[in-house]
Amino acid sequence: MKDFTSNNLAGINKSAIRQIFDSAPKDSINLALGEILFPESQFLKSKAKEIISKYNSVYTTNAGLLESRESICNYYNNLVEPDGVCITNGAEEAIFATLFTIINPNDEILLANPTYLAYDTIIKMVKGKTKYFQLDPNNNFELNRDSFRMAITSKTKAVILCNPSNPLSKVFSNDDIKYILEIAEENEILVIIDEIYLELYLFERSYSLLSKAKNIIVISSLSKSHCMTGWRIGWAVSANTDLIDRITVAHQYISTCASFLSQKIIPFALSKKGMESVAMNRVLLRERQKCSLEFLLEHFPSLKYARSTHAPYLFLNFGFDDLYLTKKLVSEGVIVVPGSVFGANGKNYIRLNYATDKKKIGEALIKIVILSKNIE
Amino acid sequence: MKDFTSNNLAGINKSAIRQIFDSAPKDSINLALGEILFPESQFLKSKAKEIISKYNSVYTTNAGLLESRESICNYYNNLVEPDGVCITNGAEEAIFATLFTIINPNDEILLANPTYLAYDTIIKMVKGKTKYFQLDPNNNFELNRDSFRMAITSKTKAVILCNPSNPLSKVFSNDDIKYILEIAEENEILVIIDEIYLELYLFERSYSLLSKAKNIIVISSLSKSHCMTGWRIGWAVSANTDLIDRITVAHQYISTCASFLSQKIIPFALSKKGMESVAMNRVLLRERQKCSLEFLLEHFPSLKYARSTHAPYLFLNFGFDDLYLTKKLVSEGVIVVPGSVFGANGKNYIRLNYATDKKKIGEALIKIVILSKNIE
Repeated sequence: MKDFTSNNLAGINKSAIRQIFDSAPKDSINLALGEILFPESQFLKSKAKEIISKYNSVYTTNAGLLESRESICNYYNNLVEPDGVCITNGAEEAIFATLFTIINPNDEILLANPTYLAYDTIIKMVKGKTKYFQLDPNNNFELNRDSFRMAITSKTKAVILCNPSNPLSKVFSNDDIKYILEIAEENEILVIIDEIYLELYLFERSYSLLSKAKNIIVISSLSKSHCMTGWRIGWAVSANTDLIDRITVAHQYISTCASFLSQKIIPFALSKKGMESVAMNRVLLRERQKCSLEFLLEHFPSLKYARSTHAPYLFLNFGFDDLYLTKKLVSEGVIVVPGSVFGANGKNYIRLNYATDKKKIGEALIKIVILSKNIE
Repeated sequence: MKDFTSNNLAGINKSAIRQIFDSAPKDSINLALGEILFPESQFLKSKAKEIISKYNSVYTTNAGLLESRESICNYYNNLVEPDGVCITNGAEEAIFATLFTIINPNDEILLANPTYLAYDTIIKMVKGKTKYFQLDPNNNFELNRDSFRMAITSKTKAVILCNPSNPLSKVFSNDDIKYILEIAEENEILVIIDEIYLELYLFERSYSLLSKAKNIIVISSLSKSHCMTGWRIGWAVSANTDLIDRITVAHQYISTCASFLSQKIIPFALSKKGMESVAMNRVLLRERQKCSLEFLLEHFPSLKYARSTHAPYLFLNFGFDDLYLTKKLVSEGVIVVPGSVFGANGKNYIRLNYATDKKKIGEALIKIVILSKNIE
């Protein structure tokens, strides 16, 4: 039979994380996925049930229910108007719709090395070119400013910052952010900031980088903060309402609108009571991060790792090739992600998500220690 | 400020239906949208509440929960396997992901004139070319076979059939379908069949055109049959599992997966009990279609209209320019869709959705009659 597929997906396959996950033995301990596997808020569950009883679930305007967009504006201290918000089927659709809306063939998009791997794939899908700037693995993955500045050309359309970072679970320093924003403004570069892990700070509270600047667009969601990945609620927000308007047109033809029920949940999720569940998640994450790291450092005092400021990832270097170590671990029933899938600077690192059951993390860490010691 | 947008959305704006809708006075009677505004099934609402109580809402595999894909296979008499199903955020995302997966620049896609207007927009977004074949307005919008055959070139990649049709609410005749499928097979053309109105038959039961043919892909959803537009549940299904696999890769990067809760509802919606609510909707639709048409024919015995086999649209020709009549009606508080937005053959027709409150339809029809008589 004829192959009906186009070149739009040439070379694009299931993500490496998914492939590793699919090859793992049953009953493996999965520390690979990007989810916070704590119970959902009972308050939000009960609100969802009330909404189901009260309303028929219908199409909303493409950008989303006004009340939900207003609550998102309020969450960002009303720095932007409801016209500056487009609610999407998770942050992934916000990223896809944004990149679809801005990229012409061969436009260059700057990405950190390492960073979340879907950005590069989506850039390829919409025919843009990825150019990487370096985060220094020998200096706690801090920005290499020269490499950032030198990556810019006349074709640079945008930079995507995953802040806090997946896979590093850390934010750029204030000085580096200032540097990036200044250079982006000078060069009329759009700054797309993915803040889906923002609320999962471990120590000091962290703040959104949304501002009134027309070249900043922030993407976020309820997925990580509220343990609500399955509700598929994300958004793109910007003071540049013209740009949000165009992203909304793309979103209209990509998927019409996000789920009515999920949208209706947003004002409750972002309310004081809804945010209390996020604070509880932070307590659980802090405890797991501390215990996991202490345990690993006890056994590997010279372990190299990214100094995380946020949950839920540890990015760890045991000194072995990361693909080799990952495969070994998967065969032992512990699923992690090899760091090199996030970019060459992640080589020899593994990404481990500790946002799950404590007993499972304990078992997995023991296996990791035994295996790493045995390879030594 | 610099314009960051690309050419991907050049010339693409809010759909014409949305623009008319947005300009209408408050408290207008809306007969323009593509929704069945009857109450949702209480059985499905109560199942949804049970699911919320019982599960945390998490990511599913990209193609969707196996149990949900199995129930979709079962709905199609197991003509295809679960690997041949990709569950999406509504049928719209299934259409977008499918066209993104198959269209190379300048590939030609055949569309009926008239048909659902988003197809052409999405084809433009992914850089394909639309070629129209004619449905004859002087012969109840039956297929003009010559125009179909002559529209095919060496660049033809696919034909999209909206069957039952939006805006006509009728199916192609069995003979015409046979003709289209034979020519498509001969020419190795993919046949994409959008069956979202299939269950809304008014008289005889209608059946899916899904088969084991590798060049057929069926798109459908719960939105219309179950009055569940807001749940955003659609799917693409085909015996061509390689193609579904690639569509699933596109879907992964477009939106990760559909809502967990909405997916969990599918097996209940497609169960015997779930389908009872669809049968009830058919009763309500049949009654409204009959009364509306009888009322109109009483006042306009020579009214031209598409002989619908399915709900929820009447496609009516009062002999006036459709844009003019639509604007007049909107100013009187009745929102309908001008037929020409669906293609040139819809000129002088208006599309009217009767799937709403009986009293509202009555009021709207009286206004339509008075207005049309006065223009005369």
